[in-house]
Parts: sequence; structure tokens; C-alpha cells
Amino acid sequence: MNERLQSLQQSMNTHGWDHVLVTDPKHVYYLTGFASDPHERFLGLLLSTVNEPVLIVPALDADAAGAASTVKNIVTHQDTENPYLLLKRQIQGAAGTWAVEKEQLTVSRYEQLQQHVNADRIDDVGVVLRELRIRKSADEVKIIKHAVRLVEEVLTQGLAQVKIGVSEIELVAELEYLMKKLGADAPSFATMVLSGPNTALPHGVPGTRRIQAGELLMFDLGVYAGGYASDITRTFAVGEPKPEAVHVYETVLAANLAGIKAVKPGVTYGSIDRAARKVIDDAGYGHAFVHRLGHGLGMDVHEYPSIHGMNQELLRPGAVFTIEPGVYLQGVGGVRIEDDVIVTENGVEVLTSFPKELTIIG
Amino acid sequence: MNERLQSLQQSMNTHGWDHVLVTDPKHVYYLTGFASDPHERFLGLLLSTVNEPVLIVPALDADAAGAASTVKNIVTHQDTENPYLLLKRQIQGAAGTWAVEKEQLTVSRYEQLQQHVNADRIDDVGVVLRELRIRKSADEVKIIKHAVRLVEEVLTQGLAQVKIGVSEIELVAELEYLMKKLGADAPSFATMVLSGPNTALPHGVPGTRRIQAGELLMFDLGVYAGGYASDITRTFAVGEPKPEAVHVYETVLAANLAGIKAVKPGVTYGSIDRAARKVIDDAGYGHAFVHRLGHGLGMDVHEYPSIHGMNQELLRPGAVFTIEPGVYLQGVGGVRIEDDVIVTENGVEVLTSFPKELTIIG
Repeated sequence: MNERLQSLQQSMNTHGWDHVLVTDPKHVYYLTGFASDPHERFLGLLLSTVNEPVLIVPALDADAAGAASTVKNIVTHQDTENPYLLLKRQIQGAAGTWAVEKEQLTVSRYEQLQQHVNADRIDDVGVVLRELRIRKSADEVKIIKHAVRLVEEVLTQGLAQVKIGVSEIELVAELEYLMKKLGADAPSFATMVLSGPNTALPHGVPGTRRIQAGELLMFDLGVYAGGYASDITRTFAVGEPKPEAVHVYETVLAANLAGIKAVKPGVTYGSIDRAARKVIDDAGYGHAFVHRLGHGLGMDVHEYPSIHGMNQELLRPGAVFTIEPGVYLQGVGGVRIEDDVIVTENGVEVLTSFPKELTIIG
Repeated sequence: MNERLQSLQQSMNTHGWDHVLVTDPKHVYYLTGFASDPHERFLGLLLSTVNEPVLIVPALDADAAGAASTVKNIVTHQDTENPYLLLKRQIQGAAGTWAVEKEQLTVSRYEQLQQHVNADRIDDVGVVLRELRIRKSADEVKIIKHAVRLVEEVLTQGLAQVKIGVSEIELVAELEYLMKKLGADAPSFATMVLSGPNTALPHGVPGTRRIQAGELLMFDLGVYAGGYASDITRTFAVGEPKPEAVHVYETVLAANLAGIKAVKPGVTYGSIDRAARKVIDDAGYGHAFVHRLGHGLGMDVHEYPSIHGMNQELLRPGAVFTIEPGVYLQGVGGVRIEDDVIVTENGVEVLTSFPKELTIIG
């Protein structure tokens, strides 16, 4: 049995769970290696103290599951069969305590489950899976690095298309075209290109505004590749920047570097946020850094942990997250510089390598 | 109050519901005009016999909701507030029967709701909303027509890029680039371009295969624009087609036309499927038409109703759906021809207008 399944089974002992049902297709993939979007059909991995782990898949996925899944006990169901009866049969009608993914399972499915199995109690297995996912394996890191390389190549090639007069959405279309062309599965979120005054909106949406000289231009983009996400932000000057824009840029860059420098095992996530924030506070821009420092990165582009000042959790090796301080000033513009990092045994490795010094383009 | 809210309130009487909570952002938009992706934050529309309809939104959406929502009673919550306590306050702690969206609401949220309100019973409001959505308003039809025009323009421009040696995924990238460029919000599903033997796979995935002469080339694509989806499939011959491919094409086209001809108010959805399927059966290809005839189209690219032979529901004016017969033959290739149609007072209007006679390209 693989290490992840073993960890989950240890958690079952700790929590006193007799049966665990994993239904998020992402987590089925994470635990078995079988990736599938079952749409409205039932897909589930059942761990139970009364049986070996069993993967329950729609009949049409039988071959694909057999080829990909490390859980070799596979049960299929036709569209005309009730998958909850199958579940019941698998545990031989045993009573006991269940755990399901309460933040993913819908009420409809939960009610079906309740009707068919004789549960003493149904807990949430979500937090256990979330904890498992924080620590990335060497294989996962390899895939994330590939997703990072891809998005950096997209940004490099996309920058060549920047010229005065091109619009934000034209650049977005160009970047997403490059993602496909270079082999990414999809953007990991809606690609963001903001120009001039729009850069001062921390959640601005790209529009038809055309790029002009003497202003800032911000790119925030990422890709999914091999099931994992990358995420990078770089801010550029189009033509000669205003002196205050340069000052903001240098401040944000210093905050980015301070955040990265603070990363090592055993410190709190909160301390990373505060290390970066202090640089911006000290420069007098604290009011304009209006979001957390970063977020976990993996199978989801935003996942646990959350890198904010109140997070008392400790960094452990294998955690991958973003560091993305930003300052947003009306009348000047906004700067955000975002890297992806991994906690190593001794400190930090920065996964993104796109240059960070202020660069004039266009 | 708008018509949709009125219909929903009538359903409350019919079902004996005292409180209805709508939480799918798409349905909040449908009922109030306020479009928002609240991510993990709480967004809900509460209808209650003890109060006016109230829209509960995250504080940061207050202005946007105020501007867009036709429900003017708006209550906001900060991230530090419990939205379920707000709900309870809105109904003044009244008991009664609830209805929620059980196919959308997660178990976590359901348990929060159960803990905070004194519900006698909690039913599912999903089926009522689904029924409401089937009948499209004139405004909705206008938006869908725009999404159809967009995707047809994308297909027209994309076809100009087809030449021997280009790969399936390069064409996908080109088409999705055109979608962005022409103003679509997003593809309405993963754009499909399949060539040669891959066309014989009803659920094939575009890959690096390069297009060759003497084979079929299938495009299945759609866009979201203004919140509504379009969906079209056309199959082309690259160079001179094989005689059997031509025969399959003519059969599928005849089935497509027979399906369209069968559309009018008062007949069953099943009869539409059977009308198209008969043409394919009669030509001896029945075994190779392995899917339903079509699906509803609207805010989702696949929504109710499902157009299959067993569907006894009656067509009513305003229903929008696809008609997409297909024949998939190993050694010959596959042909699918998909149109979007709307049921009118007297019959049918075909929303797609892209030519359907067999066209040689490349």
C-alpha cells in the first residue's frame, strides 16, 4: 500500500473511524493514482476496518482505473445500479463511525449514504487530507517545477508581444494561447494582465484598456500541468517609470526577498507574512498591502496553508506556497512580485526563476 | 418582484416551504441579477413566509450587489461573522419547513444551517429551479444567440488555419485564442478537435496527432458569453473523403434534420431522440450511435432536459437544447453534427446557422 493510504489509515485509528469514503476526484487521484472526472456519476475510494481499500468507479471507467490505480480492488457500477448499495455490500452492512469529505460531498449524496449505511456517526475527513497534501513528495515537486518552467516560458514569450497600444485582453489571449501551445493542460486561474491605473486594483479584471508608455504593467498567471499548478506575478515598467513607481517597486521586491529569507522549517507561517509586511510597513506603504502574503500551491492553485500573519502553524519541509507581497496606490499604480517556494530541510528553495529587477519593456 | 422570484414563491406554497435558501451563485444570479463568485465565502438568497426576500452577501460585495440585484433587501457579513446566525436573525428564529439546494450545498454548510435554524424538515429546492430554468426568457434567448454567433465566428476563422500537418491541439489552441479575442468569456467546455481515427472515439481527447488528407476532422466547441453557453459540432473532410465516410455523413445529417423537424411543443423529448435515431438505425448504423441525442443548454452547457429516448417530459416553448446525432465507426471515422435549437410556439427555431453540407477543407 502506498504511503498516503497508510497515513490515512493511521488517522482512522487516531480518530476511531471504521469507514472512510473519499469522493473528491482530486483526492481519489492523490490516493490511488487514478485521475477521472466522473461528472454526475459516483466515484469513491472506501477505506474500512472490515475490508481492503476499494475503488468504486463507473463501469465505463473500469479499464482506465485498472490501468492507473494502485488500489487494485476495483468495483464498478452501471448507471442503473445504486452505488450506495454497493458501498453497503463492501462493508458487509457493518455499523460504525464514518468519515466523509464534508466540504466536498453534497447533501443529496450524504442523504443517500445515510439511508444505505448504518452509521453511528459521520465525521469530516477533510482536515486529514488537507494535512497530508501540505507535504509534497519528490514526485509532486518535480511536477510543480515543470508547471513553473512552463509558465515562465509562457511569460517570456508573451512579453515579446507587448507593445504600446495592445490591450490587456489581447495579451491575456496571447498568454493563454501560449500555455496551450507549450503543453499546459489549462491556465490555473483566469490570467491577469493589468495596465496603468488598473494595476492599483488588487482584484482588477483585464479589459480593453490599451497599454501606454510611462505606466506599470502587471502579469499574474499560472498553469496546470500534470495535475499541479504554478502561479507567478511580475510587474514591469512600460517605458520610463515614474520615480514613485520605482520606489514602490524596490519596496515590494525587498519585501518579497525578506519573505523568502524568512522561510525555514519550524517557524510559523505568520512570521513569514510579518517579515515581508514589515518591509512595506517601514516604507510607509503598509495601508496599501491589503492581502495575505501567499497561499499553498499544489493540486489546487489556492490550497492550504494560508500565509497570513495570524497563522500559528509551523512550516515543515515539503510545503509549497507562494510569496506575493503587493502595494496598490491610486495615482501611482500597483506592484506585486510573486514567487513559488518550497520549504527544504534547512531553509527554502525558490522554484520560480524569472528575473525580478525592475525591467523596462514595450 | 420579478417573475422568476414569483414562480419560486408559488412553489413555496405548493410544497409547504416556509423558508427557501438558494446558494448556487448561478441561481442567485438567475433570481436577482447579481453575478458573483464568492469562493469560500457565504452567498445566499433567502425567501421566507415571515419576511421579504433578502440577499446575504460578503461585505466586500455590498456595492456590487446593491448595483446589480433586483432584490433590494441586502444584508452583508464580514469574514469574522457567522452567516448562519444572520440567516436565523432574518427569519426571527421562526421554525418551519426549509428547502435548500441539496445537489449544490455541501454537508459542512448543511450542518451549519441545521445547527442554527430550527428546521422541522429540509427539502430540496433543486428540482423547482431546474424546471424554472428550462423555459428561457426573451432576454436569455438573445444572450444565447450572441454566444452562438460568437462560436460560429470562431469556427469560421479557425477553419482558415486548417492545413495538412497541423496538430489537433494546435487547432484547439487557435480556437480558444479566437474565443478570447472575439470577446467570449471562456470556452463552455474543453474544445475538441479530433482527426482521422480519433473521430471514431465519441469521447476522444485532442492530442498531438497531425491532420492528414483523406480523413475526417471533427470540431466540437462552445463559448460562454454573458453567462450563457453555446455548443456546436461540425465534421469536415480533409481532402477527398472515402465513400463510406460520405455515406455516414449523409446519414448523420439526415438524422440531424429529422431530429430538428420533430421539435414542437407538446411532443415528448423521447420522440425527438427516436426520430433522429430511426434514420441512423434504418441506415444500419444504430449500433454506432452510442449516446443521447442532446442536452439542455443555458447557464450550463449541459443542463436539463436530457434528450434521450426514455424522456417522457413534454417540450414547451422556450426550451433550448442541442441536437447532435453521431455515428462512430472504427476504420471509417466518426461524424457528429450538432445544432442548438429553441422550441417556439409552433415548432422550432434553429439557433446555429453554420453550413451543414459535407465540406472539403485543408
